[in-house]
Amino acid sequence: MSALTDYYLTAPNQALKPALQHKIDHKTKPLGALGQLEEVALRLGLIQQTLTPHLKRPALVIFAADHGLAASGVSLYPPEVTAQMVYNFLNGGAATNVFARQLGFALQVVDAGVNADFPEDLPIRHCKLGYGTANCLRQPAMTAEQVISGLETGRQIAHEEVAAGSNLLAFGEMGIGNTSAAALITHLLADIPLADCTGRGTGLDDAGLAHKQAILQQVVDRLADQPRDVLTVLSEVGGFEVVMMTGAMLGAAEKGAAILVDGFIATAALLAAMKIAPEVRDYAFFGHCSQEGGHAHLLAHLQARPLLQLELRLGEGSGAVLAYSLLQAACGFLNEMASFEEAGVSNKEPG
Amino acid sequence: MSALTDYYLTAPNQALKPALQHKIDHKTKPLGALGQLEEVALRLGLIQQTLTPHLKRPALVIFAADHGLAASGVSLYPPEVTAQMVYNFLNGGAATNVFARQLGFALQVVDAGVNADFPEDLPIRHCKLGYGTANCLRQPAMTAEQVISGLETGRQIAHEEVAAGSNLLAFGEMGIGNTSAAALITHLLADIPLADCTGRGTGLDDAGLAHKQAILQQVVDRLADQPRDVLTVLSEVGGFEVVMMTGAMLGAAEKGAAILVDGFIATAALLAAMKIAPEVRDYAFFGHCSQEGGHAHLLAHLQARPLLQLELRLGEGSGAVLAYSLLQAACGFLNEMASFEEAGVSNKEPG
Repeated sequence: MSALTDYYLTAPNQALKPALQHKIDHKTKPLGALGQLEEVALRLGLIQQTLTPHLKRPALVIFAADHGLAASGVSLYPPEVTAQMVYNFLNGGAATNVFARQLGFALQVVDAGVNADFPEDLPIRHCKLGYGTANCLRQPAMTAEQVISGLETGRQIAHEEVAAGSNLLAFGEMGIGNTSAAALITHLLADIPLADCTGRGTGLDDAGLAHKQAILQQVVDRLADQPRDVLTVLSEVGGFEVVMMTGAMLGAAEKGAAILVDGFIATAALLAAMKIAPEVRDYAFFGHCSQEGGHAHLLAHLQARPLLQLELRLGEGSGAVLAYSLLQAACGFLNEMASFEEAGVSNKEPG
Repeated sequence: MSALTDYYLTAPNQALKPALQHKIDHKTKPLGALGQLEEVALRLGLIQQTLTPHLKRPALVIFAADHGLAASGVSLYPPEVTAQMVYNFLNGGAATNVFARQLGFALQVVDAGVNADFPEDLPIRHCKLGYGTANCLRQPAMTAEQVISGLETGRQIAHEEVAAGSNLLAFGEMGIGNTSAAALITHLLADIPLADCTGRGTGLDDAGLAHKQAILQQVVDRLADQPRDVLTVLSEVGGFEVVMMTGAMLGAAEKGAAILVDGFIATAALLAAMKIAPEVRDYAFFGHCSQEGGHAHLLAHLQARPLLQLELRLGEGSGAVLAYSLLQAACGFLNEMASFEEAGVSNKEPG
C-alpha cells in the first residue's frame, strides 16, 4: 500500500498583516468600503509577503478524465463528450477558452484519464492514469497507487507553472459524471448529507436527479465499513482529474502561488487537499458559487466567501477565470490608490 | 413652471430574441450553464440589434455635487471632502480611477454643483448648477428650472460620449450627503419604507444612523402634502449630481447605448429616469448590490439582478466599472464560442 507523499506547505507568515491593514485603511475611501476586495488584497499581500502584491502570468490548467460511474446513468450527456470537449478546448472554442483569452491566462489541457486515445502530437499533456475510472458502484474507482501517482503529477504540473513565472493558478476540469464524484467526496470527507451534495450536473430533470441520488446512495452503502481517510475516499470514488487537481493545488501552495478555485468539483479537490495539508486553504480564493447543488453547502462548510454568484454551472475553470479581474482590482487599489495624506483628503477615521 | 422635456426612447425591438436564444442555446455548454451571463448576452444583442454584440469605448462619467442637507449631520465626512475627492479623481488616485484604468474606461469628471470654485483650466467639465443644493430639511433642494437644466446637461453629455464612439456608459457620483438624497428619492418614488432606504453611508455608527433617520423623516414630514411626481421629488430632495445622472441615463438610452448602473445613488437616478421614460430600464445593467442599506430594497423593487455582490459601498461608479469584464465575457462567449455542430460535440438538448 502506498503512503501519501510529504508536502512542504506552510501557512503564510502573518507578521505583515497590521501593515497591510493600515495601508488598506488609509486609502481614500470610507473604512471597509471596498468590501470583499479588501480581504482579497490583504490575503494576496500575506501570500506574497509584500505590501505591493502583483499577479503574474495567470495560468489555467484543465484536467480531463472519464468516470466509470457515468455508465450508471448519472449524467445527461454521454461519456464521449469528455473527449469531444478536449478537442474543443484545443481548438479554442469552449467558454473557458474565450474567458482565458480575454483575461490573459496561459492555458494547458491535461489528459488525466480520458477514455480515448489522443494523437501523440496533440498539444495536450499526456498523463493518462487510465481509460476512465472503474465504476465505483461496484469497485474502487482507482487503486491507491493511481491516487498517489495522480497527486504527484498534478503537483509537478503546478511546480512547472510556477517555474514558468505564474504566481496565480486556476484549475479546471472536464469529465462527464464528475459532479457525482465531487458529491461523493464532499459527503464522505465533509460529512455533508448526500442529498445536499447531489445536484443536477449538466441539467438532469427531476427523474434524472432522483436516479442519480439513488445511485450515489448505493455507492455510499457499499462503502459503509470503509474508513474515510482521504486516500481511501479518493481511491474509492475519486476521478482522475479530481486527484490530479488535488495534487496541483498542493503543489501551487507549496510554491507560494495563489489558487483560484472554480466550482463544485474544484472545491471538492480543495477539500481533499486540505485533508492532506490544511494550510492549502490559506492560498485559495473562491472564484464563484456554482448553481450546482452541493457547491453552496461545501463553500459554507469551508467558511468560504465566493467572489461571484452568477448561477454558472459549467466547470472548465470558467468561474475561476472570470473572477480574476477582481483579484487584479484588489492588487490595483492596494498599489495605485492614493492615501488620505497623499491626496489631501480629510479622513475621519481611523486615526 | 418648467415642463419635462420630451425624450426619444424606445424599448429595443424584440424580434431578434429567438435567434439570439437559439445561438446561446447551441453553444458548447449545457443549456443555461452560463447563468446570468446568458441573460446579459441576450439583452446586449437586443440593445445593439445584432447577434454579435460588441462593447466599444466604455465610458465612465462621474458627477460631483454638494448637498445642503449635509449641514444637518447626515454624513460621517465633512462636505469639503466632495471637492477634495474631485481633485483625487483628476489626479488618478481614487479607487474608480484605478479600476477604470484597468478596464480601459474613458473617464470624465463633471462639476454638477460642488460647493467650491475650480480653476477654469482644470480638466473637469464645468456644469455647476449651484454651490451645493439648499438644505431640503427646510426648503426645496433646487428649483424646477435647475432640475430641467441638470437633466438636459446630463443628456447632452451622454450624447457626446456616444458620438465619441461609446456604446456602454457607466455613471458615478461623488457628493457628501448623497445617500440621504437617494434614500429620500427612493422612498418618495418607489414607496419603500424610509427606514429600509436609510443606510450608514460612509460609515455612520448606530447613533449617527438614528440621527440620519430622524432628519430624513423630518424632510418627509415637510413634504407630506406635496405630490410625488418625479419633477417635484427631484426638486425637493434631489442632488445636482443625481439629476444630471438621471438625464445622462435617459440620453444614453436615447442613443441606444447600454447603461452600467453602479450603487444606491445611481440606481435612485435610474428610478427617477424610469419615471420620465420607463423604457430606460431596458438599457440598464446592474453592476453590483451595494452594502448601503437601501440598495438591495431598491434593486428588489426594480426586479434587478446585480452582477456583483462584493459588499462594496464606495460609489464613484466603482461597482459598475468592476462589472464590466462580465459584460465583456458575455459578448465573448456569444461571439467566440463554438456551437455543438461546429465543434462536433454531442448535444442532448434542446434539439
